[in-house]
This record gives sequence, structure tokens and C-alpha cells, in this order.
Amino acid sequence: MVRFDPAEEAHTDRDHEIASSPFERYNSVRRRTEWLTRNLTPEDQTAQSMPDASPAKWHLAHVTWFFETFLLTPHLPGYKPFDPRFGYLFNSYYEALGPRQPRPQRGLLTRPSVADVMAYRAHVDAGMQRLLSSGDEGLGDLLDLGLAHEEQHQELILMDILHLFAQSPLRPAYAPPRSAPSVDEAGVAAFVGFEGGLVEIGHSGEGFAFDNEGPRHKVWLEPFSLSDRLVTNADWFAFMADGGYRRPELWLSEGWARVQAEGWTAPLYWQEGEGGWHAMTLNGLRPLDPAQPVAHLSFFEADAFATWSGARLPTEAEWEHAAADPRLHQIFDVRWQWTRSAYGPYPGFRPAPGAVGEYNGKFMAGQFVLRGGCCVTPPGHVRATYRNFFQPHQRWMFSGLRLARDGV
Amino acid sequence: MVRFDPAEEAHTDRDHEIASSPFERYNSVRRRTEWLTRNLTPEDQTAQSMPDASPAKWHLAHVTWFFETFLLTPHLPGYKPFDPRFGYLFNSYYEALGPRQPRPQRGLLTRPSVADVMAYRAHVDAGMQRLLSSGDEGLGDLLDLGLAHEEQHQELILMDILHLFAQSPLRPAYAPPRSAPSVDEAGVAAFVGFEGGLVEIGHSGEGFAFDNEGPRHKVWLEPFSLSDRLVTNADWFAFMADGGYRRPELWLSEGWARVQAEGWTAPLYWQEGEGGWHAMTLNGLRPLDPAQPVAHLSFFEADAFATWSGARLPTEAEWEHAAADPRLHQIFDVRWQWTRSAYGPYPGFRPAPGAVGEYNGKFMAGQFVLRGGCCVTPPGHVRATYRNFFQPHQRWMFSGLRLARDGV
Amino acid sequence: MVRFDPAEEAHTDRDHEIASSPFERYNSVRRRTEWLTRNLTPEDQTAQSMPDASPAKWHLAHVTWFFETFLLTPHLPGYKPFDPRFGYLFNSYYEALGPRQPRPQRGLLTRPSVADVMAYRAHVDAGMQRLLSSGDEGLGDLLDLGLAHEEQHQELILMDILHLFAQSPLRPAYAPPRSAPSVDEAGVAAFVGFEGGLVEIGHSGEGFAFDNEGPRHKVWLEPFSLSDRLVTNADWFAFMADGGYRRPELWLSEGWARVQAEGWTAPLYWQEGEGGWHAMTLNGLRPLDPAQPVAHLSFFEADAFATWSGARLPTEAEWEHAAADPRLHQIFDVRWQWTRSAYGPYPGFRPAPGAVGEYNGKFMAGQFVLRGGCCVTPPGHVRATYRNFFQPHQRWMFSGLRLARDGV
Amino acid sequence: MVRFDPAEEAHTDRDHEIASSPFERYNSVRRRTEWLTRNLTPEDQTAQSMPDASPAKWHLAHVTWFFETFLLTPHLPGYKPFDPRFGYLFNSYYEALGPRQPRPQRGLLTRPSVADVMAYRAHVDAGMQRLLSSGDEGLGDLLDLGLAHEEQHQELILMDILHLFAQSPLRPAYAPPRSAPSVDEAGVAAFVGFEGGLVEIGHSGEGFAFDNEGPRHKVWLEPFSLSDRLVTNADWFAFMADGGYRRPELWLSEGWARVQAEGWTAPLYWQEGEGGWHAMTLNGLRPLDPAQPVAHLSFFEADAFATWSGARLPTEAEWEHAAADPRLHQIFDVRWQWTRSAYGPYPGFRPAPGAVGEYNGKFMAGQFVLRGGCCVTPPGHVRATYRNFFQPHQRWMFSGLRLARDGV
Ligand SMILES: [Fe+3]
Ligand SMILES: [Fe+3]
Ligand SMILES: [Fe+3]
Ligand SMILES: [Fe+3]
Repeated sequence: MVRFDPAEEAHTDRDHEIASSPFERYNSVRRRTEWLTRNLTPEDQTAQSMPDASPAKWHLAHVTWFFETFLLTPHLPGYKPFDPRFGYLFNSYYEALGPRQPRPQRGLLTRPSVADVMAYRAHVDAGMQRLLSSGDEGLGDLLDLGLAHEEQHQELILMDILHLFAQSPLRPAYAPPRSAPSVDEAGVAAFVGFEGGLVEIGHSGEGFAFDNEGPRHKVWLEPFSLSDRLVTNADWFAFMADGGYRRPELWLSEGWARVQAEGWTAPLYWQEGEGGWHAMTLNGLRPLDPAQPVAHLSFFEADAFATWSGARLPTEAEWEHAAADPRLHQIFDVRWQWTRSAYGPYPGFRPAPGAVGEYNGKFMAGQFVLRGGCCVTPPGHVRATYRNFFQPHQRWMFSGLRLARDGV
Repeated sequence: MVRFDPAEEAHTDRDHEIASSPFERYNSVRRRTEWLTRNLTPEDQTAQSMPDASPAKWHLAHVTWFFETFLLTPHLPGYKPFDPRFGYLFNSYYEALGPRQPRPQRGLLTRPSVADVMAYRAHVDAGMQRLLSSGDEGLGDLLDLGLAHEEQHQELILMDILHLFAQSPLRPAYAPPRSAPSVDEAGVAAFVGFEGGLVEIGHSGEGFAFDNEGPRHKVWLEPFSLSDRLVTNADWFAFMADGGYRRPELWLSEGWARVQAEGWTAPLYWQEGEGGWHAMTLNGLRPLDPAQPVAHLSFFEADAFATWSGARLPTEAEWEHAAADPRLHQIFDVRWQWTRSAYGPYPGFRPAPGAVGEYNGKFMAGQFVLRGGCCVTPPGHVRATYRNFFQPHQRWMFSGLRLARDGV
Repeated sequence: MVRFDPAEEAHTDRDHEIASSPFERYNSVRRRTEWLTRNLTPEDQTAQSMPDASPAKWHLAHVTWFFETFLLTPHLPGYKPFDPRFGYLFNSYYEALGPRQPRPQRGLLTRPSVADVMAYRAHVDAGMQRLLSSGDEGLGDLLDLGLAHEEQHQELILMDILHLFAQSPLRPAYAPPRSAPSVDEAGVAAFVGFEGGLVEIGHSGEGFAFDNEGPRHKVWLEPFSLSDRLVTNADWFAFMADGGYRRPELWLSEGWARVQAEGWTAPLYWQEGEGGWHAMTLNGLRPLDPAQPVAHLSFFEADAFATWSGARLPTEAEWEHAAADPRLHQIFDVRWQWTRSAYGPYPGFRPAPGAVGEYNGKFMAGQFVLRGGCCVTPPGHVRATYRNFFQPHQRWMFSGLRLARDGV
Repeated sequence: MVRFDPAEEAHTDRDHEIASSPFERYNSVRRRTEWLTRNLTPEDQTAQSMPDASPAKWHLAHVTWFFETFLLTPHLPGYKPFDPRFGYLFNSYYEALGPRQPRPQRGLLTRPSVADVMAYRAHVDAGMQRLLSSGDEGLGDLLDLGLAHEEQHQELILMDILHLFAQSPLRPAYAPPRSAPSVDEAGVAAFVGFEGGLVEIGHSGEGFAFDNEGPRHKVWLEPFSLSDRLVTNADWFAFMADGGYRRPELWLSEGWARVQAEGWTAPLYWQEGEGGWHAMTLNGLRPLDPAQPVAHLSFFEADAFATWSGARLPTEAEWEHAAADPRLHQIFDVRWQWTRSAYGPYPGFRPAPGAVGEYNGKFMAGQFVLRGGCCVTPPGHVRATYRNFFQPHQRWMFSGLRLARDGV
């Protein structure tokens, strides 16, 4: 399992949790982002390995642009943008904010340099310090959103750097290898039953949540069971040994088309060598540990595995309803868990007006929901109502699966 | 509104409805398919205008192959396939039945000729007559499936021929123009309220239905309202006049990408000429009638229109719950109605074992559900639980929309 | 070797050769085109198997449009075009004549039907009869061009039908199989030496030739040798057995990229089956005869073979200078022979003004010259100065090669 | 005209010219490469703006790999490669030397870093110093090739960095703007006549030349004329004003397809703004000077301009025959000059055996020859027999044109 050394992470964790003032919270998140990129060279931070990924330097600047655009410019009197051209360069997808650098060409932005971007960050941090010490009470929601946003990009930085390094023939390690933590009770998976009925899911309005987590609403659930642990690499070897990637009857039609078009024979980053199967990780190319939960699966692979197992993927409502049950393990901190739920609006959902309303709502077609969190998710970032989403063929997330069944 | 002359259609309708024996039912459907292609030349029946569409000749043969494969070969003792090579040519997507002609290359099958395909049909019809007169009681479900399948392809033949003719600079008419039928109560749309609550949807098991329509199951619905009529061409002109195709804030992200990549400025088949807006139809290029329901929309367009209207698309559960209400018009016979529901499995759904299980289940990713039926749907084919589905960018169906709102 | 039965062909040959009046010559060519399509169904004549190929029906109409456009409309008083829309449909590539049906979509032209196209041919034939009996002396060059043009399309019809039928899983035969004619003196190839020096090539102005064959001009040739026969299938088997398709050092860079991207392991239309190697031909799928000249080669394959042989391809000047030497065999009637000469303008070449000037000149980039003629070239069509040209990756012509060497 | 400040360049020039020992010559070229990249950041040196271009860092390493592979490893006893993995990373296209990093993914090589590459250069420089001081007499040809190779990449570094910076919305300048040098005698162009006849072209064997420049051989030339100067920006404005990019009759067929597919309306890097036409240059975005020779043309554009002018492009033989005539200006140091000659082998040309034989010969299909040299060509690099070559659609070279005519 890829994870950061708890010792190293500890201080930032503690800072984050005990943060008492808005700026301390802000500062803690901001410093963690920079800490994550401390070992990356300027070259590493500039390259873009595929259109879905972005350079680390771009992430560093984009999250800064978010604070500048949504907080400083409208709310800090006299604030002067660091460079008016950065709006074009570092807007990600907000149509309301005008044209922007085409996503597949973010890797061509050799200027501004990493040093320039760090100066941009410092400029915005100074502005934020002024803004947050001004005692403006109404900015709490936007601050929360900006910090949650930067935390999302912290995870993306690690996903993207892993993808970039996996393309390199040198297979560089982002961090030195460590002995893997012991896995909690992998052993034989057991299914835990739930009676279902008319339940409620979704965020209730207390504390921060993204707009797509609400409104809280009623859902009817038939009785169901969830596995108490995630599918492991050992499980996946069994699937592969049984012809899992060669049997169309296990796959959704579009999934099978992907298998053939892209020659999938194993999860992303797996490769078979003389010493058996290895996987590219943030710690470099490492032997696969059978006991670890499998990672870097597409929805199609997760679904095919579930079908092969005589099981199915959970719906997101089932997952959320069950998440608090102490009999279930590996909920938030190991792998994102694919659900069979297409990502769509909850009953009564309306995007916020203006640019910030583009944050989540406009992606509600063609994606599937993942629940939980993973080993590279920032500490304290997720909750039971959190809805992550990706396209069903994407695999560069730390995505795995938990099996579900009908009936208790 | 494009529709066949009721006078012409009448006799087949009647045949269909009063059919008393299985073979009479079989024969009625089969003859209607041939009647639909009666004015198409061999050339018309051979061309394939895009990978999503198929030649009419291919449809004529494929539905025949379905009866041969699922009924005659396994159930009629001594049946000899017409040509053993046809399994390769006319299998559509059944992986369990082996390799097949690649879909985008169906238009290269100049052999067998139309005459050969008609001989194939006659051969299978003779076999079916023997099989159905043998009194085998257990084949009713497969017969129903085969007939429903052929009816689906009857609609596809018309969709595909329209698409083909729309590519021709000559804009041929499939059928001579007629005066349009009067539209029932277009007038001002009114919203009809529904209380919702814990309702049931899905097919209950009586009478024929596709597997994806069940199991019947409980769904919680918040109060909602549906428009009593479909969105019209006049409504669509207003959307266009208000910049509907130029305002990204109205569109889902992937929809806006389509608008730009494909240059959408109007529904499919619309073109502006000297005499105003026209649309290519089965009756050739015709002036657009403002009072008619708009057709040939993608999901993205339907969703953008709903957003522009301050409304939304209905869920499929809402639609089905409301479908029987007599205050709603244009339910089954005018335009397929996009819902905001991604096409997925109902709780407890399991595909049937074997090849026939590939009919519906394996497409449950990346598509959206349409409900109702349309002017080219065979009479008697649809029902309230019927789930049609297409990819959100597809437009060559006779697809329109009905608006929904939260609350009664 | 694929060839038409001399007995069948004889009468048209004779007609062609003894034709005394312009209209008799015209008529002879026109009838031969129709004779070539006599066994093709309307479906066969409508399909387009790739953008490089055209439907037979399109060829039948396009050559007719050529006469209508360049002869009848400007020169026959009172001539009324058969259908004014045909200019759009059947213009191939003449920019000066306005927009046209996009080449990759010629297969979507199910209308006009084959019958309509035959009526178009009759209409133009009647016009041509009137025009040619009017005694207008100045039209000889345009008539010659129109007839040579139609003869080129006769060969294209056969190339394109073979390509179409090769895509069909049924592997239909255009013509019934016959016993192959004996090959003239295959045996061991001998190299025939030529002293070179300052020679002249190109058309001198007497008799018909395409514009690209002139002006006649001086070229300096170093001493060289040409093989007295073409490379055979047996030779090609030796190349393949020696790893010809797996050794990059034999290939031009762009050729090797093609080998890998398209998975070439043998000439086009070859396939290995239980009974050894076969090739799809106009007579259906036939066992490969080792003694026959190899066909359906790209320039890249021909060049790689020559390199492998320690030889090279001839230049077009060498080929033309040597063509009349009686020691060389298989010059005009077996396979087009790739040269190493890029297709370009001869010194002093200028395209004719107007649309007819687009015939040859605008293709003088990116193509290579083939010399000679082949088994499906119309009788009497070629001459020693004739310059055929194709892109170096194209293979659906009846193309082979003759080896050359430096020195005598 | 983009050109380096003579003052800055001077010292390297002089070093180059007065170099007396092999290592001094080696050192002079090597230092100039590094001098060219002195103002580029690590980020600038890592990005790849298109598959045709390479990162500066890759160029720096690749030319070093060339010396390591062809000189040090085979000829310096005890030489140890800097890193055995670099053979994979920095082999450009030598099939005989095994697999290599795919060309379009050179921008993903964030490791080795720029610092690592500089260490690699130092390591190889040390080896070369030992090798060249060992007095091995037989390595002169390989050294010459390695130096000429590195000089070619010096020009590529500038071409590629300009292309990269032209993609950036910030339009960075590679070097500070300077006042343009005065152009020598732009004025009205005059045509200079040549009698032609049986002449010789190609390299005679004395002094270094690339293999593709020989053998020297006879060519027959008809009388011709060449313009004494290059086509200017002012000339090009006239072409554009006369509809040059909108008139298909001026273009080769494949060129016209490019114009339409890529929307060409001006040479590469030109853009029209409020202050008139500007061009992106190595000195940033600059107003176009009408008197300067036009740059960044494709072959297709050069050919269309020549046609529009009632002239033509010269053949490479004409160009070489005329190059020494003092009446012609702007031969070597301004713009590469497109010829109408497809790039092919001279009579008697044979590539050298082994990997080094892949240097030039395997590209002899699909490219056109440019002659002369340009403002970013290293001093002393070119000669009259030099054959540069590019694909006819490529435009990121400093390419222009000189007109030719038939007759004196
Ligand atoms: Fe973001
Ligand atoms: Fe079907
Ligand atoms: Fe033609
Ligand atoms: Fe190189």
C-alpha cells in the first residue's frame, strides 16, 4: 500500500486539526501542498503525461488562482492580481470566467517557472492573510471550498506524478520505498448484511460539504450485504488466472471494447517481469503484495470482477448507508471504491449561480461515483457523504472495489 | 410530425391486434418489416451512413438470424441453416455466439443481395411456421422476444434510412409528403403535479417485457410536476434565439464540448435556407412546423433546454409513475422523451444466462434512458415500463423532451 | 495471373483496334466499360470500400460527366445536361468546377440508382453521337482525353471491385476461375545492360499522350542493368522467409513505420490458410502460383525487396529508355512496375489552363511513378512514355517490380 | 530577419575557424551548443511542443549519445558509458541500435534532469579529449560527422524552442529584440540566366560532406533563370492580398487539402493584430518587416507562390549549379530555399553499412530538398552541395524561397 510516512505527515496533520484561526487552517493546507512537491525537480513539475493529468506546477498555480479569483479579487479591497495573464493560464474549466489554456497543452507552459509560481503563491498568501484577518464573517464557505479544492488537487498531484513517472523508462520513485504497513485483517472477506428500507443519504447541511453531496433525501433500499474488506491483489490474480481479461461475458459492452482496444491484461501500472508481477508506485517499481487491496482499476474492471465473483458493485446509497458500521473496514483510507451508481444530481439539487456553480454539477453525465477515500487523500478531507467521480475507463486514481450482494 | 399514413398502416395494425395464433402474430410482424422497405432500392438497402446505423438489408437479415439462432436451430428438429456463413454476417453483438462482421463495415456486405436476403427470410419463415405449428408450449417467451426485437429493428430501419437520405445531396424522400396531422392541444403547456412518496415502478411479470424493465421495485419520489405536452419547434426557436447553442452555462461540460467540436447550432437535420428553417424528414426536406414537437435532440440538448427553461428533465421513475395520468398528452406516439436517468440495472436485476442475456444488460454504462415511444415506433410495441436508451450525444432517434419541475 | 479470358475480350479488342470513326472509337470504349460491370449487382456497384476506392456506379457516372462537362456542354449547341445536380455528385476533384461530393462519401449515393446512371450514359452517348457526327475538327484532343480517361477508370473499376470483394467475408469472385495462362519464360532472371549516356525520354507530340508525359527532354543516364522479368511470388516467398517484413534495415523509414502500424507481413490480399498461401483475386480466393509475378505491392515493399536483393528500383528514365529492348519481358501487360522516381514535372512542363489542367499536374507531390501496364489495363491504353503514379503506401493496384542495378 | 548578435557570436566563430586540433574543433562546437541554451530554464528545456520537435535537453543529450555510441564505445579502450539506460532514451531513430523512447514522448523525460545531462556531456567530453589526444588517425570522418550532426541539432534547438515559445500565451522571447540588420539590396528582384547543358553536381569527395551529397554526377540542364534574391514579406503580402490562400488553382492537390484542413491563411507564426501583422520570432512577437525575406513556409506555400508569380521553384541541380554565381544574393545565410526536387538518392548512392548508414538514406521518400542555409544555421556548417530535406507540409524551419524560370 502506498502511503506517506506517518512520522513525516504527523506535524501537518496536527497543524490541520488543531488549527484555530481561519488563516492557520489556510496556512496548514497551503504548506502541505508545497511539502508534497518538495522533492520534485522543475522538470518533473512541468511535464504533462496525458490530457487527464496536469503538471504539478500547474496544480500549484491553479489552486492559488482559485483563491485569487473567488476570494481576493471580489473581497479584498485594493487587491492587485499577481499577473493578469494568469487567469488565462490557470483557469481549469470555468466557462463563466472566459477562455483558458487548452487542457492538453498545460505541459507547454514552461513559463511561468516554478520559482515564478512560488512567488505567485506567496503573493496570494499575503493577500489571504490580510483578507482573513479582516474579520469578514461571510467568507467562511468560500474559504472552506478553496481549502477543500486545494486538498483535492493535493491528491491529483500525487496521481499525476505517479502517472508521469510510470511513463518514464527510468521508473523514478516519488518517495523512497518503505516497508508496507500491515494490512488490517485481510484474511477471508465476510459479508455484512443490512436490512435497508426507507433511509436517508446525502449531506444534511452541518459542516462543510460540496454542493453535490446534498440535498439530504430519502432512498428506498432493498436488503443487501457488503464485504467487510476490499478486493486484494491476491483476489485479482485469481481473476486473471481464470481468464478474467479474456472473457467477454464478464464485461459491460463498452468495457470489453476498451479491453480489446487498449490491450488491458492487468490493472494499470502492473507489469510482469522476471521476478513476477510488479507495480509502479510512488515508491518506484515494487513487487505486488498479494495481501494489499488492488488499486488502479477502471469501473469496467471493477464491474467485471464483481460479475466474475457472483456479486455486484454497491450503489452509492448502499455504501453511504453502511459506511458507519464498525464491522466494515478500509472505508476511508485505502482505496476509492467504485459504485454502480452513475454520477447524477440528487433530488432537488441545483448548482450555485455564477462560476462557482460549475464546480461539480456540469460533470453529471458519463461518470460513475466512487466512495470512501484512499491512501493519498489528505487527512480529514473525506466523509461518508463524499461523492468522488470519474469516467468508467479511467484508472490513474487509487481506485479499488468492495463487493456487494442482494439480501442480508 | 413524421408519421405513416394511418390508412396505409391500418391493415397491418389490425392484423397485429386481432392475431390469434402465434404464427399469425409472427407473420404480421414479419410482413410489416418487408412493407417498410418496399420502396427502397437495393442500393438504398445496402449503404451504411455511419457506424451507429445499419443498412436496411442488414436489418432484414439480422432479425431473421435472430429467429434462426434462438428458435429454429435449438428447437426445430432437422432445421438446416440457410447459409452457415450468415452467423458471422448477421450477428450484431452477441459475444457468446462468436466473431462477427465489424459493425462499421456492414455497408461492405454487397453480397448476399437483397434478393438473397428475401430468400433467407422465406426459408426462416417456413421453419418458423413448422415450429410454431408443432405446439411446443415453451417457446412463447422466445417468440415474444424475437417479435419485439424485430419491431425494434423496424424503428431502426426508419431511423437509419432517414440518416442515410439526409447525407445525400439529393435529399430523397422515403415516403411522399402528406399534410401533417393536427397536433393535439399544443397550446400553452401546463404542469401537472404529482405527490410522489413510496411508489413502485418496473414490470410486474405479466405479459411480455424486456428483462431490463424488471424487477418491479419500490422508489421514493419527492413531489414533482411534468409538463402535459412536449417541447415544440416554436419553443426550440426561442431557445436558439436566446443564444441557447452559444451559452456554455446552460450545458453539461461534455455537452458543451460536443457543441463546439461538432458545430451544433440546431437539432439534427435542421437547415436554414432561403425559405427559412427546414428539416430533413422521411418525407424529404420540409419546412419546420412550429407547433410540432421538436425531434432529433441529443440528451445534452434536451438537458440544456430544460436548464434554460428553469426546469429539468424528469427521472425515469417520475415519468413511469406519471405516465398513466390522463392529463398528460403525447406519451407514447410522438417523440421519445429523454430522462435524466442514466441507464442502469434495477435492484435485483440479473441478465439471463447465455447469449440472450446480452440483449440489454451489457449496455448499462454511459447511456441515458428515454421513455414513451414515437411516431415511427411500431404500433403496440411500447408500454409504460419500457426503457429505451441511447448515448447522450446521439441524435438520429426521434427524440424530444418533456419538462419536469420539483414540487407540485 | 489475373486476366480476362482472351476469348471474351477478343471482340472488344478488335472493335477497339479497327475503329475507324470517332464515334466508333467512342462507342467501343463506352461499351467495354459496361461490359466490365455486367456481372455486378446494384449493391456491388454502390458500396465504397475505402476512401481511395469508388463505387462502380460512381465510375460509370463520373466518366460520363467528363464527356458532358468538357465536350457536350461547351461544344454541342443546345445540349441540356441530364441532371444539373450530377455536377456536384460526379465531379471527382476539379476545383475549377466547383464543390463536389466528398470523396469518402461516394458510397452514400444510393440515388441515382444504377438504372438512372445507365440512362445518364445513354443520354450522353446520344449527345456524343450528335457532336461527333457534326464534323467538328477541333475536338480530337478532348475526345482522346475523354476516352483515355474512361479507360483509366475501367482499370480502377476492377481494382476497386477487387478491394471491395476482398473485404467481404464471402470472398466473392468477380469472374469465374480459369486456368492461369502460362507465364513467358519465368525461369531465372537475367540482367540486361544499357550503356546510358545522354538520352531523351518523354512524349514527342505525335499521337495522344497525357500532358504529364512531356515535354520530351534530355536526361543523362549512367550505365545500368534491368532484370528481363518481374519479381515472382516465389521470389517474394524467399524474401518473407528471410525475415523481409521484420528487418528494419531493409526499409525506408516511412515504410517501416507502415509495416508496424498496419501489421504488414505479406502483400495485400495474401492470406495463409490450411492449404498454404492464397490470394484474393478477381477470380476469388486462389492458391498462389509461385511462378506468377507478385502483385499488390506498395512502393515501400518493392524498395525493401530491391534492397534485400542487393539491387535497386529503376528510375523512370532508365525504364523508358530500356522499354523497347526486346530482351526485356513483361513490360506492358502483367504488373505495373514501381520506379524510384518521385512523380514530378518534366523540364518545361506546364499544366493546361482551366479545369482540364487539373488532370495530372496538381498531384506532383508525394507520389511515385510506376511504368508499364498490367493485366487489367485496357488493351491499347499504355505506351512507353506513360507515367502512372500512386502514393508509396498504396497497394490495391496491380503493382509489382522489376529490379535494376548500377553498371552494365 | 532573426539573427544572433554578431558581437556575441563572434568569439565562437573565431574559435571555430582557427581551431587547429581535433579536440579544439570538438570543444568549439560543444561549447556553442551550451551557449545556445544558456538562457533557457530547466522547464524550457524539457517541454516538447509537437512530435516533430524535441526538448532542448533531449538535443543536448542526444548529440552526446552520438559521440558516445559511434566514437567512444567502439574506439576508446576502457570507456564506460555514463548510464547504460541512456541508449534507450537518446537514440533518435537508429533501428540497428535497438528500441528507443517513442519520439512523441520525449517531453515526458523529466529525468535525467538538465544538470544530469550536463554531467553526461562533461563525461563524454572527457572521454573525447582522451580519444582525440590518442592520435588515432582513422576517426576523422566520424568526428566530422559527429560535429556536423551536433551543428544540425544546434539549428534544431532554435527551431524547436521557437515553436515551443510560439505555443505559449506569454510569447516569451528567446533573446532580446535587436534592430534588424539592413537587408542587402532587397530592391526589385532580377532574374539571372544560366545556359545549363551537361553539368556536374554533388560532392566530389574532398572535405567533409554528408553521404547524401554524393556521388558527384552528370545532370542535363535546360537553360534557366534564378531570382537574385529571396521572396520578401512584402511579396507575400501581395500574394495574400490577391487571395493566395483562397485560390485552389494555385495549389498542389495535397497542399490545398492542408490549407483547408489546418486553416492556413498566412505563413507559420504570423498573426494579425491591432497594429497590423506580426510574427513570433526568437526575439518575441515582432512587427513584420516588409523588406525581410519571408520565413516559415511549407513547400506547398512556396510552390503556390511560384505558380501565382508565373514562375516555378528551381530544381536542386539548377540551384547547386548556380550557387557560386556572385550575381545571386542570400544564398547561405538567410532562408533555406525550397526546391521542386523530391529528396532521393543520387545515381550510385549507397548508404554506409551499419547504424551510421541510417543517417540520411532511409528518409528518401516523401520529402523535398531545401538548399542554402539560414540565419540560425551554425557558421561554416553548409556548402553548395548540402541537401537539407523536410516533408512538404512542415513549416517550423526557417524556410523561404527563390523563384526560377525556364530559359535565360
Ligand atoms: Fe480545480
Ligand atoms: Fe438486434
Ligand atoms: Fe477521373
Ligand atoms: Fe540526430
